[in-house]
Amino acid sequence: MEDYVTKKLQPIHHSNVNITGDFWRERQAVNRSATIPAVYGLCESTGRIDAFKLDWKPGKPKMPHHFWDSDVAKWIEAAAYSLANQPDAELETRVDGVIGLIAGSQQADGYLNSHYTVVEPEQRWSNLRDMHELYCAGHMIEAAVAYYEATGKRTLLDVMCRYADYIGAVFGPVPDQKHGYPGHEEIELALVKLYRVTGEQRYLGLSRFFVDERGRQPYYFDIEARERGEEPQDNRGQDYFQSQLPVREQTTAEGHSVRAMYLYAAMADLAAETEDEALLTACENLWQNVTERRMYVTGGIGSSWRGERFTTNYDLPNDVAYAETCAAIGLVLWAYRLLQFDGDGQYADVLELALYNGVISGVSLDGTGFFYANPLDVIPSRYESHPELFRIPVMWPRRQEWFQTSCCPTNIARTLASLGQYVASVAGNTAYVHLYVGGDISLEVAGEQVRLTQVTEYPWDGDVRITVQLDRPAEFALALRIPGWCPEATIAVNGQSLDLEPLMCRGYARIQREWSAGDVVELSLAMPVQRLESHPEVSSNCGKVALQRGPLVYCLEEVDNGPNLHDISLPEDAELSVRFADDILGGIMVIEGEGVRRRLADWEGKLYRPFPSHIETVPIQAIPYCYWANREPGEMLVWIDERQCKITG
Amino acid sequence: MEDYVTKKLQPIHHSNVNITGDFWRERQAVNRSATIPAVYGLCESTGRIDAFKLDWKPGKPKMPHHFWDSDVAKWIEAAAYSLANQPDAELETRVDGVIGLIAGSQQADGYLNSHYTVVEPEQRWSNLRDMHELYCAGHMIEAAVAYYEATGKRTLLDVMCRYADYIGAVFGPVPDQKHGYPGHEEIELALVKLYRVTGEQRYLGLSRFFVDERGRQPYYFDIEARERGEEPQDNRGQDYFQSQLPVREQTTAEGHSVRAMYLYAAMADLAAETEDEALLTACENLWQNVTERRMYVTGGIGSSWRGERFTTNYDLPNDVAYAETCAAIGLVLWAYRLLQFDGDGQYADVLELALYNGVISGVSLDGTGFFYANPLDVIPSRYESHPELFRIPVMWPRRQEWFQTSCCPTNIARTLASLGQYVASVAGNTAYVHLYVGGDISLEVAGEQVRLTQVTEYPWDGDVRITVQLDRPAEFALALRIPGWCPEATIAVNGQSLDLEPLMCRGYARIQREWSAGDVVELSLAMPVQRLESHPEVSSNCGKVALQRGPLVYCLEEVDNGPNLHDISLPEDAELSVRFADDILGGIMVIEGEGVRRRLADWEGKLYRPFPSHIETVPIQAIPYCYWANREPGEMLVWIDERQCKITG
Repeated sequence: MEDYVTKKLQPIHHSNVNITGDFWRERQAVNRSATIPAVYGLCESTGRIDAFKLDWKPGKPKMPHHFWDSDVAKWIEAAAYSLANQPDAELETRVDGVIGLIAGSQQADGYLNSHYTVVEPEQRWSNLRDMHELYCAGHMIEAAVAYYEATGKRTLLDVMCRYADYIGAVFGPVPDQKHGYPGHEEIELALVKLYRVTGEQRYLGLSRFFVDERGRQPYYFDIEARERGEEPQDNRGQDYFQSQLPVREQTTAEGHSVRAMYLYAAMADLAAETEDEALLTACENLWQNVTERRMYVTGGIGSSWRGERFTTNYDLPNDVAYAETCAAIGLVLWAYRLLQFDGDGQYADVLELALYNGVISGVSLDGTGFFYANPLDVIPSRYESHPELFRIPVMWPRRQEWFQTSCCPTNIARTLASLGQYVASVAGNTAYVHLYVGGDISLEVAGEQVRLTQVTEYPWDGDVRITVQLDRPAEFALALRIPGWCPEATIAVNGQSLDLEPLMCRGYARIQREWSAGDVVELSLAMPVQRLESHPEVSSNCGKVALQRGPLVYCLEEVDNGPNLHDISLPEDAELSVRFADDILGGIMVIEGEGVRRRLADWEGKLYRPFPSHIETVPIQAIPYCYWANREPGEMLVWIDERQCKITG
Repeated sequence: MEDYVTKKLQPIHHSNVNITGDFWRERQAVNRSATIPAVYGLCESTGRIDAFKLDWKPGKPKMPHHFWDSDVAKWIEAAAYSLANQPDAELETRVDGVIGLIAGSQQADGYLNSHYTVVEPEQRWSNLRDMHELYCAGHMIEAAVAYYEATGKRTLLDVMCRYADYIGAVFGPVPDQKHGYPGHEEIELALVKLYRVTGEQRYLGLSRFFVDERGRQPYYFDIEARERGEEPQDNRGQDYFQSQLPVREQTTAEGHSVRAMYLYAAMADLAAETEDEALLTACENLWQNVTERRMYVTGGIGSSWRGERFTTNYDLPNDVAYAETCAAIGLVLWAYRLLQFDGDGQYADVLELALYNGVISGVSLDGTGFFYANPLDVIPSRYESHPELFRIPVMWPRRQEWFQTSCCPTNIARTLASLGQYVASVAGNTAYVHLYVGGDISLEVAGEQVRLTQVTEYPWDGDVRITVQLDRPAEFALALRIPGWCPEATIAVNGQSLDLEPLMCRGYARIQREWSAGDVVELSLAMPVQRLESHPEVSSNCGKVALQRGPLVYCLEEVDNGPNLHDISLPEDAELSVRFADDILGGIMVIEGEGVRRRLADWEGKLYRPFPSHIETVPIQAIPYCYWANREPGEMLVWIDERQCKITG
């Protein structure tokens, strides 16, 4: 397969998908009406917007912090995606105003950073390891591309091209250039976007320079530390920054998980743009390590709050899980890019898993409360009595409207606003449908403009009806994803059942035929409640199961099940059924069943006693994990004790 | 019951018990031959001994640390107990030499502290909260009493009486005295010992002053902080020091667990000496809280390494369990004192539990490797790859010969050397036997000198044969403890079985008769393997059992069971048998049985998959927890998944 590395699929622009299914339509509406205004308000009130006025002076409050620019950039990006979906003159005016401030803050040489320009102007590029300069530049480039694509307005794009050109002069392989790379990756994938929208090869080259330079010895972060007069290593180690090895030699996901995801996403981009097989192979090795060893069942990654990072294989503690919202978003970004190479459904499976679970668990249903960390096992009473003993504040099980390091709220906002991009791709004469969200998908396949209208109650129900609209009959293939979680699927075209097995290719059912307007494909994905186990080396989950139905992982909440969730166990033969509860959380599918638990009354005055004690059956009700912490505070638990087993082998 | 608070039992001096049973005899021999010399060597090489020469100067290495004196004191105390058991001229000479240095370091006013005298002489008593001055004094008083009792030599006793008198002048209720109390309790119980050996009421009064003053508002630690020009509160909070409330009002065990134990032990002492019912009631409330809510199944207490402290009810995580060795020793000290009031076996049960498990797990079989923390669930690979991510160094699962704060090694040494004191007590005409250790117990009961000779293989076997020796027949009661763990016991005197039930009183079988020389009591304690559950609110143990046999809690080690111990589970009907394995660890009783676990091979490339997967039966072998970490390093686990249950109620 000599064209192995060739990216075959072309993603569609998010604005070509109009999502109408309730699940995501409501999330997008709240994102537009509540989240985007709220995070703007906080960027504004915390001084992040005014920072671009460059009027801060020592002694004044609200000193521009070195990552503030990135929050404003992600807000602009979110707003741009939202404007592309739905015009909003007031929002556009507001963005234009902010862009005016940003443009005004650009220095004569093209430099643009609200922290360094006013706080330590002599220190530019002196600490790539810790100071997020290139990271901020990357996010602002992404914002510029998004806003240009949404509105056609070039102001910010031109500003960021000038800045990128300046960065390209400072960094590069020539002896008098800096051979550095960012401590927090991000600009690498942003430069690929800038290349794609401008066609300027130099941006692609700069991205590749940053990626290739990373991990070379002697380590740049050590060199620059010595230049600052510091000891070369800080206590984080090179692996914290994914700079322990050249990226092509890396096989395990190490260090800060958001940084890792942004790097890996850029590696996938570069592999596609430059047909670099070694980069793709590295991506695949890292993918295998992440998804087979280091990923929560929710798609959360980066299990330790110390360093917000990956730790070791199978180290996935539930109670102290960090699983940062931004890291799950990063996993979506990476999976999305790998999916485009070959249309391999394993990437779409993880993309979907993360989106429906570990990403949107990070935002409340009203759009204004966020989680930075997304644990899978919470007992709030511990925090309440001794908050200092358990976890850092960012991990307290209370949604917060903002954080000191506030990457997650704006990241959620831009993700939800651009959700359409993940729904479909085109590869030559094949239209791929990755996600079933309800709505209209416009795409060009086999030279024809085609509209696919999805009607579905997904994720509550696995029936999907797709109506094909096109001007004249045309032969092409429709490749419909059969999710990895689905044990049984049926498919029919215009009422006629198809034999699925011969159609299957890498997780997609590929229906090749001459399509005419009004053709109807009916896909039915069986969506039983499944009990998942995890690998025997995941010590925290041994003897436990997680409930999953369709793409949704479920959890128990105290408000439904009483306290001491850990003592609930599921007998192996307990039947689990589903019910659409329209009175809960705006209407969700709950899983109901009978569990068992011990009687507290039997334990009065005892801490330990001989097994077995009496147990009693109790009704249990599980809700989707992504809905947790939207009612009264209490315990939450994903992995539930499974109390029986049969020796089968 | 107006004499409720009267202490009825009189403990016997440890030197009246000659332990000959293998289990403890070997521990005591190693303590004498290895531990006591080794900890002396480390006190010496680290500068703790020479510190008393008072020749340290700024800029020199080995600045005397503010808790160094306590380590030397505990070494002297251990040596004294050892000398009382077995004379050793060389050791005695060495102790005399150290005492000479200590005596020479006493100041003209009686003050004695190697840190303050040379490092910050102007700062005496300025920071009781943090600086361990009174704690060091307390340990040195205990050492002085022990050495005087062992040898009749008064040098250190006189020195410490002078120091105690000076402390009594500085602290007290009179307006120009300081109304303070120690940040780390210890001197309170030491002053009771000093009172008992000297008969001087003023030492008892000073102890009571410290105990009564604690927790009064305004808080002394805040007052002295302001006097130092500091903000009154540090981030630990008053409860860290058990000073949040007057001690009589405290109902939950809070804060640093070693400090708490030493305080509670002193409260029990004072309750006994002063017949203070409110103090005893406070002890009982705190006892209930500790033993019914906050104690590991090993007798370990203080679950969090942050603050080495108690946290909340039922918060007993196994992997990050702190359960400091010294805290388990403190629990023994407290239980021992409460046991003497009424001869209530619940105190002896916990004393025994802690001794056989959470205390001696803290020292290696060769006597020179120590654990500060005693977790119940260890996966060393986590530490090895990312030690910085998991726990503080003191919690690494490797035995160490010493620690920066090295309280545990010397505490173990003094505990093992004085073990005999816990074996028996006398109350009027009743001789209580609390522990079955094998050996000779000399005591006076009903005016007669009685020797009880225990022959037993305890804790490996529950048969105990006690031969009574006395000069002439005498009527008295022999109260033999029937341990709380024992489901069935039989007892016979001179071959004649007794009906146990009418003899039972608070956990002891009380045999009142006229005893003659050569009378033989045969006690048989059934010692089945028991599976223990813990209270449903102990989230970390739900669905799990711990194996216990007799007083010993068992654990799985990787060396016997392979890695991934967490994936082993015990079917409810799995039979568990015992075998004396003379080839393991010098000869121990192991528990054997059949567990089940999943096959790793089935999981190649999978992290999550639908339940159930195949499982297979595997032989398992458990060893006593107190023997863990004496062979090759690896995983260890106490709480094992229990995989089946029946609905019985």
